[in-house]
Amino acid sequence: MAKNVGILAMEIYFPPTFVQQEALEAHDGASKGKYTIGLGQDCLAFCTKVEDVISMSLTVVTSLLEKYKIDPKQIGRLEVGSETVIDKSKSIKTFLMQIFEKFGNTDIEGVDSTNACYGGTAALFNCVNWVESSSWDGRYGIVVCTDSAVYAEGPARPTGGAAAIAMLIGPDAPIAFESKLRGSHMSHVYDFYKPNLASEYPSKPTGCLLNFSTFMGNNCLRQCCHHVVDGKLSQTCYLFALDTCYKYFCHKYEKLEGKQFSLSDADYFVFHSPYNKLVQKSFARLLFNDFMRNASSVDDIAKEKLGPFSSLTGDESYQSRDLEKASQQVSKPLYDVKVQPTTLIPKQVGNMYTASLYAAFASLLHNKNTELAGKRGQHPFSLSNIATVMDVAGKLKSRHEFPPEKFVETMKHMEHRYGANDFVTSKDCSLLSPGTYYLTEVDSKYRRFYAKKDGEMCCF
Amino acid sequence: MAKNVGILAMEIYFPPTFVQQEALEAHDGASKGKYTIGLGQDCLAFCTKVEDVISMSLTVVTSLLEKYKIDPKQIGRLEVGSETVIDKSKSIKTFLMQIFEKFGNTDIEGVDSTNACYGGTAALFNCVNWVESSSWDGRYGIVVCTDSAVYAEGPARPTGGAAAIAMLIGPDAPIAFESKLRGSHMSHVYDFYKPNLASEYPSKPTGCLLNFSTFMGNNCLRQCCHHVVDGKLSQTCYLFALDTCYKYFCHKYEKLEGKQFSLSDADYFVFHSPYNKLVQKSFARLLFNDFMRNASSVDDIAKEKLGPFSSLTGDESYQSRDLEKASQQVSKPLYDVKVQPTTLIPKQVGNMYTASLYAAFASLLHNKNTELAGKRGQHPFSLSNIATVMDVAGKLKSRHEFPPEKFVETMKHMEHRYGANDFVTSKDCSLLSPGTYYLTEVDSKYRRFYAKKDGEMCCF
Repeated sequence: MAKNVGILAMEIYFPPTFVQQEALEAHDGASKGKYTIGLGQDCLAFCTKVEDVISMSLTVVTSLLEKYKIDPKQIGRLEVGSETVIDKSKSIKTFLMQIFEKFGNTDIEGVDSTNACYGGTAALFNCVNWVESSSWDGRYGIVVCTDSAVYAEGPARPTGGAAAIAMLIGPDAPIAFESKLRGSHMSHVYDFYKPNLASEYPSKPTGCLLNFSTFMGNNCLRQCCHHVVDGKLSQTCYLFALDTCYKYFCHKYEKLEGKQFSLSDADYFVFHSPYNKLVQKSFARLLFNDFMRNASSVDDIAKEKLGPFSSLTGDESYQSRDLEKASQQVSKPLYDVKVQPTTLIPKQVGNMYTASLYAAFASLLHNKNTELAGKRGQHPFSLSNIATVMDVAGKLKSRHEFPPEKFVETMKHMEHRYGANDFVTSKDCSLLSPGTYYLTEVDSKYRRFYAKKDGEMCCF
Repeated sequence: MAKNVGILAMEIYFPPTFVQQEALEAHDGASKGKYTIGLGQDCLAFCTKVEDVISMSLTVVTSLLEKYKIDPKQIGRLEVGSETVIDKSKSIKTFLMQIFEKFGNTDIEGVDSTNACYGGTAALFNCVNWVESSSWDGRYGIVVCTDSAVYAEGPARPTGGAAAIAMLIGPDAPIAFESKLRGSHMSHVYDFYKPNLASEYPSKPTGCLLNFSTFMGNNCLRQCCHHVVDGKLSQTCYLFALDTCYKYFCHKYEKLEGKQFSLSDADYFVFHSPYNKLVQKSFARLLFNDFMRNASSVDDIAKEKLGPFSSLTGDESYQSRDLEKASQQVSKPLYDVKVQPTTLIPKQVGNMYTASLYAAFASLLHNKNTELAGKRGQHPFSLSNIATVMDVAGKLKSRHEFPPEKFVETMKHMEHRYGANDFVTSKDCSLLSPGTYYLTEVDSKYRRFYAKKDGEMCCF
């Protein structure tokens, strides 16, 4: 079996167009700090009329192949995670096949995985499993997470965002999976869903179906995937799911490693990030879990501050604002070390659904690649080269700020155009970087056409 | 690594309500034989107002677990293949989690796979890979294929159908996969797609995006998955995709086995079956492929009849009606032996999209379980027990025939109701068998509620 299977390389793309949360706050007449401190967000990136989840994924996959000089024939699997449905039957993966068909490679397995923000993680697990299975033919896999999170005007709108991430999967990876150390929690709930097929907006925009954490230690990823459990009290359910997941994870860790797991056993924690405040709350909740289990990592100050809450029932503990405050306070020093380095892109771009967790992970590589333990991975597949190639700082720096009015106008236009056919776009790609794909036309038969800026036309 | 991973058990469900193709022909004013001989179909099963892809999958998974006495805690992965989108974000898999949550099992990986009819096969491959990977925790996987194929009034309507299939996946299976012997062909084409999210009907209803064949020999499945390639000449493209796939497959076979593959090397061929006529044409095309490659299986009569077509270019060969006729004629004796036993359910039920291929496979088990070579699999996971449990004959026998008028009326009702909320159904489950789930309500928040006939209420 292939060893140390995981992420060999990564590329990230987010639209170069964004709005400042501070400006949006003022524009919306919200109280000062509501979006920046209340949600913990800095900026919100969004697709203009010429971008969508397909163009973003064409851009990011092409860029990954080019920057790492990967022959498209060397790809044997291609999977997409997304919850931005453009067609109910034709997968986003088939659009990406254009890149490979040109080189005569059509023998590529993999489809689209759909399950709210968890679809990208499911795709990633599938791809890793493929490399470890007897089906593997020695070629690389690619996993793409692509989503555009847009919300109707109202309190949820500032939690939007958009991005696509591509990951190259294979053995001997600098970022390997410890697949035995994984806890999942999934249940049937109506917290986040999109049943109105004629609208791009979700039904209950304030919740998020899934959280998902990655613990990073010794260059190994350990996962904990969880769903939010109910519509009524979204946060209660979110925390319940987090708890359940963490319990599954800790139980498996203890069985395999013969000792308790606690926050001190991982160098970094990467969370799904619909907005940064939820990441802070989630990490605080894990510390409370450690405290309740009497895990060794909890220091005396935390024990003292959390002591008064030890007799709460589960339900009470989810409702207690005092506990929330106290646990956030005592977890702050650990958060700054183990979580803060993962928050750059999610705070700058916003919620990216399937791509969100991996954008947080990309932030960590950006900030800490030289310090991360473990020396697996040879050039070009090393952590420092991944960080160089992603060039997060350069991408953030070259963005174009939109005033809130122009952002709102774009959203209105997209609302009206949603599901439409028989139109050409402005083809205005002046704000896009060279190499970026953009939408040029949706014809009367709903067929979508894309072009590449400063490059050859898309192969239609 | 786990050995002989594959299908341990199967269950199939199709709605008990159907229309005769002969009656539909007359009702539609079509020429006699247009649906029965032209398409090769006998009947068309359809969901009435109380059934949908979710209820069918709840029914089939529950039945699989009950009939094989599988503890729901013993399931570690659950995947769904479907192209019948009910929600853009919430997966069908989460609905099925109700079955497992009751037993305290929420640590179950897997999501929905979307890629036209290929979604079910992708889910199956993922599940087999999981069992072979380091992520496997020793539990079973379940793969569900569930679809309802409905078409607007017109020539495509008789190619509808509906069904759900559940397969239990694990090691030491009576139906094992030979994962190295698999050819895929996927490309970016607009042959079959559903971009109008507000309608249940596909955009170009006469094509089918994907064909997919399974070769069965020595109880091993060898696969060949292919997409149709273009909208204009659907059949040309279908055959091109079939050719490409078969070439990939034969190439891999020859590399691994050191000899040419030909039709004589497999006992049975199972095809995706949008309608039976396409299955006949596909098998004939494979024989033509063997002839062109000079494969040993082609007999002298075939050589003589196909000789005149050997100088055709690829394009010409797809257009030639004479070749189509000649190859169908010479492949008929082989078809009767190697394909006909797989056609019962697809002809009786119609197109089932993701479930279609596995319904054909179920037909083969139904017809040939005692004769199939290979003795792998212990009770209850034996081919003969799978056939007994599926009880295809019993299920077909207990169906209720609808006159075409009533079928059309049902379709109209479903059209109007599509995407709607805030309604209760008739809850009339008089035609359903005990144990069948049915839709009772979609509330104002689009939440869907189901009940089980003659059983406990669904856990809401």
